[in-house]
Amino acid sequence: MPDANRQIVLDQIPQGKLGPEHFKLVETARPEAAEGEVLVRTRYISLDAANRAWMQGATYRSALTSGQVMAGGALSEVVTSHDPSLKPGDLVWGDTGWQDYATAPAKRLTKLPAMEPVTHLLSVYGVAGLTAYFGLLECGKPKAGETVVVSAAAGSVGSLVGQIAKIKGCRVVGIAGGEEKGRWLVDELGFDAAADYKAGNLRAQLKENAPGGIDVYFDNVGGDIFETCLFAMNNFGRIACCGALSQYDGAPPAHGPRGVPGLIVTKRLTLRGFVMYDFDDRRDEALKDLQTWVAEGKLKVQEDILDGLENTPAALIGLLAGENRGKRMVKV
Amino acid sequence: MPDANRQIVLDQIPQGKLGPEHFKLVETARPEAAEGEVLVRTRYISLDAANRAWMQGATYRSALTSGQVMAGGALSEVVTSHDPSLKPGDLVWGDTGWQDYATAPAKRLTKLPAMEPVTHLLSVYGVAGLTAYFGLLECGKPKAGETVVVSAAAGSVGSLVGQIAKIKGCRVVGIAGGEEKGRWLVDELGFDAAADYKAGNLRAQLKENAPGGIDVYFDNVGGDIFETCLFAMNNFGRIACCGALSQYDGAPPAHGPRGVPGLIVTKRLTLRGFVMYDFDDRRDEALKDLQTWVAEGKLKVQEDILDGLENTPAALIGLLAGENRGKRMVKV
Repeated sequence: MPDANRQIVLDQIPQGKLGPEHFKLVETARPEAAEGEVLVRTRYISLDAANRAWMQGATYRSALTSGQVMAGGALSEVVTSHDPSLKPGDLVWGDTGWQDYATAPAKRLTKLPAMEPVTHLLSVYGVAGLTAYFGLLECGKPKAGETVVVSAAAGSVGSLVGQIAKIKGCRVVGIAGGEEKGRWLVDELGFDAAADYKAGNLRAQLKENAPGGIDVYFDNVGGDIFETCLFAMNNFGRIACCGALSQYDGAPPAHGPRGVPGLIVTKRLTLRGFVMYDFDDRRDEALKDLQTWVAEGKLKVQEDILDGLENTPAALIGLLAGENRGKRMVKV
Repeated sequence: MPDANRQIVLDQIPQGKLGPEHFKLVETARPEAAEGEVLVRTRYISLDAANRAWMQGATYRSALTSGQVMAGGALSEVVTSHDPSLKPGDLVWGDTGWQDYATAPAKRLTKLPAMEPVTHLLSVYGVAGLTAYFGLLECGKPKAGETVVVSAAAGSVGSLVGQIAKIKGCRVVGIAGGEEKGRWLVDELGFDAAADYKAGNLRAQLKENAPGGIDVYFDNVGGDIFETCLFAMNNFGRIACCGALSQYDGAPPAHGPRGVPGLIVTKRLTLRGFVMYDFDDRRDEALKDLQTWVAEGKLKVQEDILDGLENTPAALIGLLAGENRGKRMVKV
């Protein structure tokens, strides 16, 4: 076991677009676990658009500050444990940051089962899968025959949302950037249609592909796409507010989408914001469903695995630019 | 019974602020009820901010057009009935417009019980009361001990929302324009505090009067006040979207409040738009509660009754300017 610990530090808080210059790779000594703590070795770092939002200010967690090791969820392996609940070799999930090694109190880590491929613990059985599952089913409440639209549809969450909506008997339209992603959604994942927001005139594309209007919109992006979908919602529609990717990589937005709250009233919409952790008590139920669907071949899992801790900043920057397909992670 | 029927016609659709020049008083012959129809004489016309919204475009009803008799709900008395369900002298509620007489199919009219004062059928037992009741209890879901904030708090709906929230054991802060309205809310209606949006720095006023944050925001106004309240919401808070008064009297808004959808996600808020008519099947239950509270003196009913059909345009223009306290109506 090497004595060194490579860490990627958030050197400066970006004011505009995130770039490699905002990060710095440093090397420190491998930390020691104190009483009640655990030392873990990072195996896969999860890349999430929310990582960028944390730099903008307080969200469901406190804001990141310059000089700290970049925060981020990761799948790690226990090296040394000073807590009876974990032992060397155990796999854990936790916000252990962008580094080779981390120490943390055992209670801040979630023990995970061994499985193959182990990366599924970060994708379909991790934050992405649980976010898609609870967001769609609890906030979106889709009924068979309804039309579900999901944005960032080729992303880790969106690609699962659309497939789960199909399993539930809905018509599914995915919004993604570029024809290639759209073809993949339809041909490989079984979406009914795709809309390409980069091609312009999203409103007309939605009209064509969701001619009966939208009953459930799963929003990962906020901004203009949110606004366009808002105008296409049916009465009594539901919007699951999962993220606002379009608003993260820059200064916080000066204003919001048109039609709020006027259209919320007129169309009697329900908008509900959620964070996957809110549904922790129902995790087992969700995992059981997800495992069944994967086993039956109804839910395809797409992973986008990059290699090397030093590439984590580029992995996040690329994710914000829509480079990935499915769940992006970095193998350390 | 006079043979003439005075009608107030929406002569032009306003592009900016609504003024008397957009209306025209005309006199036509009293209409005759056809087969299945009823002839009614208007007694009280209900003034509602929504009247102005109907001029902006389609809402939960189709948009108004220039040249039509101005639409609006009213309490009327049946004069002639060609339908067995109604007889002369019956009181009915319906969108019979701003005129002395109207004909309508019986099924588009709701028969109301006789009561004293009859105006309560338009205020606490009418749209205002039912809107306050269902919006607060079904969309806001207040729990005892929580903080409820309501905007347009001195208006017909807001003044009832605050009192119902007090009955449910909440801390209640009303947002209204001017110190006098605020004093009335606290001294007469029993609100815990009032915030004066005309005095500026609403954010600081809310911080002072709702120091624990807002759990339920009942929104009648949209725009900047909505935005300010959004930033003051507690996690898992609920926003009942009832109207967007601040956005009605002009061109439709070019953008929406900041923080949407970002704060909806971060704070895990639920926003729900509603229209009172959606709860029609539970009307009796609501009326029973409202009657009990009025009888017990827990719910004070404030009415603002103007006189004369010809004054209806000025009554609406004044309502949009915040002139009224409680339910505004015009006696015809």
